[in-house]
Amino acid sequence: MPRYRLLVEYDGQPFQGWQRQADRPSVQATLEAAVTALSGETTEVWGAGRTDAGVHALGQVAHLDLTRLYRPERLTAGLNAHLRPAPVVVLDTAVVPDDFHARFSARQRTYLYRILNRRAPPAIDRGRVWHVAVPLDAELMHVAAQALIGRHDFSSFRASECQAESPVKTLDLLHVRRRGELIEFHAAARSFLHHQIRNIVGTLRLIGEGRSTVAAMGEVLAACDRRAAGQTAPAGGLYLLSVDYNPTASRP
Amino acid sequence: MPRYRLLVEYDGQPFQGWQRQADRPSVQATLEAAVTALSGETTEVWGAGRTDAGVHALGQVAHLDLTRLYRPERLTAGLNAHLRPAPVVVLDTAVVPDDFHARFSARQRTYLYRILNRRAPPAIDRGRVWHVAVPLDAELMHVAAQALIGRHDFSSFRASECQAESPVKTLDLLHVRRRGELIEFHAAARSFLHHQIRNIVGTLRLIGEGRSTVAAMGEVLAACDRRAAGQTAPAGGLYLLSVDYNPTASRP
Repeated sequence: MPRYRLLVEYDGQPFQGWQRQADRPSVQATLEAAVTALSGETTEVWGAGRTDAGVHALGQVAHLDLTRLYRPERLTAGLNAHLRPAPVVVLDTAVVPDDFHARFSARQRTYLYRILNRRAPPAIDRGRVWHVAVPLDAELMHVAAQALIGRHDFSSFRASECQAESPVKTLDLLHVRRRGELIEFHAAARSFLHHQIRNIVGTLRLIGEGRSTVAAMGEVLAACDRRAAGQTAPAGGLYLLSVDYNPTASRP
Repeated sequence: MPRYRLLVEYDGQPFQGWQRQADRPSVQATLEAAVTALSGETTEVWGAGRTDAGVHALGQVAHLDLTRLYRPERLTAGLNAHLRPAPVVVLDTAVVPDDFHARFSARQRTYLYRILNRRAPPAIDRGRVWHVAVPLDAELMHVAAQALIGRHDFSSFRASECQAESPVKTLDLLHVRRRGELIEFHAAARSFLHHQIRNIVGTLRLIGEGRSTVAAMGEVLAACDRRAAGQTAPAGGLYLLSVDYNPTASRP
């Protein structure tokens, strides 16, 4: 039974998130419906990242099994035809080994977070950025962010509903830079706690605004208490950018 | 009676275009309704560029007269409060001399056109790019575009419904460059014929694809016949980027 790996882009706004839910539309159920419409088979589509409601993906990775062998380009085009008009698109498909698992084989996930930092709210990027009207110092935010790199107990940035077994994670990269009116955050780790990036962004915003200091970041981390950190930044600014696997897992 | 100049951003998708229409929503009517809701006054809002249905603006300029003198920041914030939830935002407001006219004082208009050049259709940028699945050579398109720079009879790129008195226009700049999966066009001129940029982009696409040659661009221009040029590129890829005025007209 061939296993397929999909590279997927979606606009998170109309969805309750990646994960299938009984009563609300999800990216997973949308993909599964397209697979069934195309192949006549009912199968589960596994995603590398279970993105929350309103979170977007530019490079989500998913896998599924089908009894029939499709040419990858044929599966990409066929799924896209059936996905329309939902804002979910398959960018690429590859046949992968049976032991490849989109979620459990993933070695690193990279997310992008975007703040629109100007007085006026967004007209074109509504639901796709966090609008912060007060001026933020992105360089200061970048410096403060470096205190989080490495292996730490990230309890201060963990949502109460987080289901991870441990609050200890290793943050590989956290870059903050300004591009015109946008402030872009890039964050990479093997895996993240629930809301970890959004809670980090909410905390860095306080530092960028001058309501907290660079030095305070280490204290927030050390507190291991969600109340020590800033607000949860809105979902619409967050994008799952890419997922990395071991080279042996033949990337799409 | 103070005259105000507005810098405006909008998503063109829900609108019939800039210009007020009896039966369909327009950006102009949306702004005029917000002005009336804020000030109690009924006044006309004049735009620098009468963008078509589905065309966006990152830097449209408009002017209006009100009997009352507002602080510019107060007018910006008040209009934005009344514009919500329409995807129209005032970025900046300035008080300008009585002889300033958003449309007739404009010296140069700059537009951006975006092609998404990849196999898969857009999920996130739907309605905001032209999706072209076949690979395009942006460098070739840029070279071909240079044949259009200067003062020419642009009849080959003029929509039949164009109301301009003359088909002769001066194109100041036409840059084409690839940025990853995007091909971006920048076009600047004092003014454009109806559909001029979209017809030029549709013609350059044929060259980028290899269905026409760089040399053919001069022939298309010389033909002065709309049938010599390519298709009209879709509205959703076009953005009014900025409008320039004489320095004496105190830019916002």
